Amino acid sequence: MKIKLDCIPCILNQLIRTTKFIYGNDEKRIKELIDEFGEKLKLIDMEKTPPHAGQILYDFISEKTGIEDPYKKIKKESINLVKNKKALIEKILEESSDRLLTAVELSILGNIIDFGATDGFDFEREIENLETKHFNLQDFPIFKEKVFKAKNILIIGDNAGETVFDTFLLRELKNFGKKLFYAVRESPIINDATYEDAVESEIDKYAQIIKPGHTLSGLDIEKVNKKFKTLFYSSDIIISKGQGNFETLSDCKRDIFFLFRVKCNVVSELLKKPVGEAILYYHNPHKENI
Amino acid sequence: MKIKLDCIPCILNQLIRTTKFIYGNDEKRIKELIDEFGEKLKLIDMEKTPPHAGQILYDFISEKTGIEDPYKKIKKESINLVKNKKALIEKILEESSDRLLTAVELSILGNIIDFGATDGFDFEREIENLETKHFNLQDFPIFKEKVFKAKNILIIGDNAGETVFDTFLLRELKNFGKKLFYAVRESPIINDATYEDAVESEIDKYAQIIKPGHTLSGLDIEKVNKKFKTLFYSSDIIISKGQGNFETLSDCKRDIFFLFRVKCNVVSELLKKPVGEAILYYHNPHKENI
Repeated sequence: MKIKLDCIPCILNQLIRTTKFIYGNDEKRIKELIDEFGEKLKLIDMEKTPPHAGQILYDFISEKTGIEDPYKKIKKESINLVKNKKALIEKILEESSDRLLTAVELSILGNIIDFGATDGFDFEREIENLETKHFNLQDFPIFKEKVFKAKNILIIGDNAGETVFDTFLLRELKNFGKKLFYAVRESPIINDATYEDAVESEIDKYAQIIKPGHTLSGLDIEKVNKKFKTLFYSSDIIISKGQGNFETLSDCKRDIFFLFRVKCNVVSELLKKPVGEAILYYHNPHKENI
Repeated sequence: MKIKLDCIPCILNQLIRTTKFIYGNDEKRIKELIDEFGEKLKLIDMEKTPPHAGQILYDFISEKTGIEDPYKKIKKESINLVKNKKALIEKILEESSDRLLTAVELSILGNIIDFGATDGFDFEREIENLETKHFNLQDFPIFKEKVFKAKNILIIGDNAGETVFDTFLLRELKNFGKKLFYAVRESPIINDATYEDAVESEIDKYAQIIKPGHTLSGLDIEKVNKKFKTLFYSSDIIISKGQGNFETLSDCKRDIFFLFRVKCNVVSELLKKPVGEAILYYHNPHKENI
């Protein structure tokens, strides 16, 4: 999807949120960065996606602050937080009558861990209320059918911490005998999972972790390396996690299962789904195109 | 109150909202204006209030578009919309056991008509649900007491359309024999009421309409003309409508009754009231200062 005008104030919100992580209450320093970034708004290309605009921001923050990975500590904490909940997650799966469905729900639930689009989250409460939570999983039957037929599956990861939730889905898929690939970000961007974060989350127990050769809080399939591109188009199915990947892949020519929370009005209006809704959405360009 | 960093993305939202009124879906033209305004973010002074920053924006819009009053049509429509509901409002007042309280509630209800802070509103539903609506009017007893003692009252108006709701409050106050002054904006700013809008709303049937001599979507008491300043400090009580007036007068050295809807997180955090809450808030600098 192309970026919308309404995404631009949101990019400024992200600047404020991230620089508050770095400079705390130093309003003067943050205002200086806002002023300077204001002059770079012209670099935002309306023909590109929201994560492309985000990249201009995060490159600017790294350059100005000298901090390449402001969310490093937060990412580690998120991973440990979810790791400490593994017994609870395991219990939910054991009690489930459809483990694949529950693993999908848990994986989408993990997508609340996002410092790009939101300020905070309370996932302990979310896990505990899993059964009463509303998921929009109308495409689950076709997902299940395609999973059973698939030999190899590419999962495109999103946030650190969410990765731990994903291990449960990966385990289910692995138990079905699938060969799994798990894509991470090439280098740090917001709290998205890098190779190190994926290993820390034990993704490598179930899947081969792969780097796309290009950094974005999403995936620009025209910019990834050849190996990744081949894998992308040859995988039997693709499971894409999070709104950033959706934003960059929603016009993609191949079919993709998107698992994410709708996090803003722009995507809400595009998909006609309310903000906050947890969805499994099957993008099939042979049927329709967004 | 001083502007907060989080107000800056909101200013950009206002730019988009207002230029969409002017240029519709001409994304390219609006993006050019965003880019150009981005270079002016440095003019926003963190020592001043949010409406002061808003003024930089609205002056920019007028200069760039050549349209001094983009909300002119909308303001007229809002006034007529509420005028057409006068019989319903009258009925609510007739059935009320405390007409002053109900007139205050209706006056705050009118504050939903705001194109600066919000995108839309459904005031027909709001009027019909008046009885079940939650108002935070804990300062009403002191308001009532001070109203009874007052000889002259200054009401600082806010949005066009809201002005029609205000006429019912003005009538109640007039019936108590009070001398009333109703302040409007000096010249058009967002959908705030000007002299013409106030006359169109029949404010002049109950109050002397006065112009402050300075335009802002709020009131900068240091910038108003001498006559207005004298009136401001000599009135027995001041009733200030809307969040913009609150933002500019919340540090004021004299006491003021603020009647408004909390419209954003910044004011919500300041007052510890949820967004959307309709409040009557007594600012008394001799007791406390925000």
